[in-house]
Amino acid sequence: MNAKYDERAKKVDSLLCVGLDPDFDKLPERFKKMDEPQFEFNKWIIDETHEYAAAYKPNSAFYEARGDAGMRELKRTADYLRSEHPDIFTIDDAKRGDIGNTNNGYATSVFDWLGFDAITLQPYQGGRALEPFLSRSDKTCIILCRTSNEGSGEFQNLMTDGKPQWKIVAEKAASEWNANGNCMLVAGATYPEELAEIRASVGDMTLLVPGVGKQGGSATEVVPNGKNSEGLGLIINSSRGIIFTDDPGAEAKKLRDEINSCRV
Amino acid sequence: MNAKYDERAKKVDSLLCVGLDPDFDKLPERFKKMDEPQFEFNKWIIDETHEYAAAYKPNSAFYEARGDAGMRELKRTADYLRSEHPDIFTIDDAKRGDIGNTNNGYATSVFDWLGFDAITLQPYQGGRALEPFLSRSDKTCIILCRTSNEGSGEFQNLMTDGKPQWKIVAEKAASEWNANGNCMLVAGATYPEELAEIRASVGDMTLLVPGVGKQGGSATEVVPNGKNSEGLGLIINSSRGIIFTDDPGAEAKKLRDEINSCRV
Repeated sequence: MNAKYDERAKKVDSLLCVGLDPDFDKLPERFKKMDEPQFEFNKWIIDETHEYAAAYKPNSAFYEARGDAGMRELKRTADYLRSEHPDIFTIDDAKRGDIGNTNNGYATSVFDWLGFDAITLQPYQGGRALEPFLSRSDKTCIILCRTSNEGSGEFQNLMTDGKPQWKIVAEKAASEWNANGNCMLVAGATYPEELAEIRASVGDMTLLVPGVGKQGGSATEVVPNGKNSEGLGLIINSSRGIIFTDDPGAEAKKLRDEINSCRV
Repeated sequence: MNAKYDERAKKVDSLLCVGLDPDFDKLPERFKKMDEPQFEFNKWIIDETHEYAAAYKPNSAFYEARGDAGMRELKRTADYLRSEHPDIFTIDDAKRGDIGNTNNGYATSVFDWLGFDAITLQPYQGGRALEPFLSRSDKTCIILCRTSNEGSGEFQNLMTDGKPQWKIVAEKAASEWNANGNCMLVAGATYPEELAEIRASVGDMTLLVPGVGKQGGSATEVVPNGKNSEGLGLIINSSRGIIFTDDPGAEAKKLRDEINSCRV
């Protein structure tokens, strides 16, 4: 499934992922009154931005906050993407993780019921617990490595034998967990130097990079530090900086172009 | 909210938590045909076991596997517990974790929409990211420390300055994150020696202990190593060993009594 992303990225000449995070309180008033406010908002965002997007990434928390109604609108969003734009890579940013037996339920939910191409995953319970995801060679597993938030270093920077934990996660992903060629890693745009170290540790593995825009990360630092040997290998996500603006299409095009100007 | 657990534990003289993990494929045939199979199964389990239970802990993955229908049945289960047994402590074993802004969505979903007393949480993104949960002094935050699964040591045992990561999590929970007195930790029954070390690190903080029964942990090791100075401080969970038996009430009573025989 990782190849799907590369093909789309080449086709539209874009490394941009649009974050579909429809925080209900922040929706424009015209959507709040609709029967399916989050889906209708997402549909509008997708219609406006798809020609610049290689991927879309809804964050599950914003849907779960509205209970089963939100979950249905998340599924409607996934279904809409699959039917209208089947070549766009779709990521459920759900940050799931449990013991192996239980992870089967999450894999079924995200890969089969919702139908996403990829899921984000927690490493804390170890690689063996991730087996129900890793064994799905038809899907992509994106494991948290170095997250974009302030304070993310509290555990991720803990050093063992001279290596921070994020680096240990990166090395294990590249050497142990990627037997099916279906792993990627999360590496925040807010820590560009560590992004370069992660790139050095994982070969050409693709990195999902949140934190550009409102969180403070910039394309000019991310692209040179994170791209792989083919000039690809990055899924650069922006959510609030695109979706909660007056002209999401223009903002998506602007960021796509800014990213591309750093690729040459 | 932590006091609610202690009061219930004293009232029914029990440290037992029944894990409501209604894996659809394992349900008795008579439930599979019902309109709300997971809820009806849970209702039966609750009716059979409540007099021996201090807490119930559904694992979200088994419900999410059935999409929005499963989420509705999880909510129906929480509603049923709240209306029929308002003094029983309820835990959504959802193992959530994201950046701070996003965690607001999960807190709303689990604490307000579903209405659980407690949630299990991932530490990997750091304590500051957990603020939307920790700030809820009306609720309980149960943070993964040493999980029960095989292979859980892959990251949890990584040593920094002579301390494994699970110990660093335990110490931070006790010294930094518990300002509202609403923290607990997950410490698996399958690692009883480490349970004793966690107890030594966290004072009287309550520990949620999965892994008794099918996973191989035993009450005779868990109770002496894990109880606090009041003879409480443990929420001992069994799921499959109770719910998928012919007589769940008898199994719950048996484990409750076995735990109690180790408390004296």
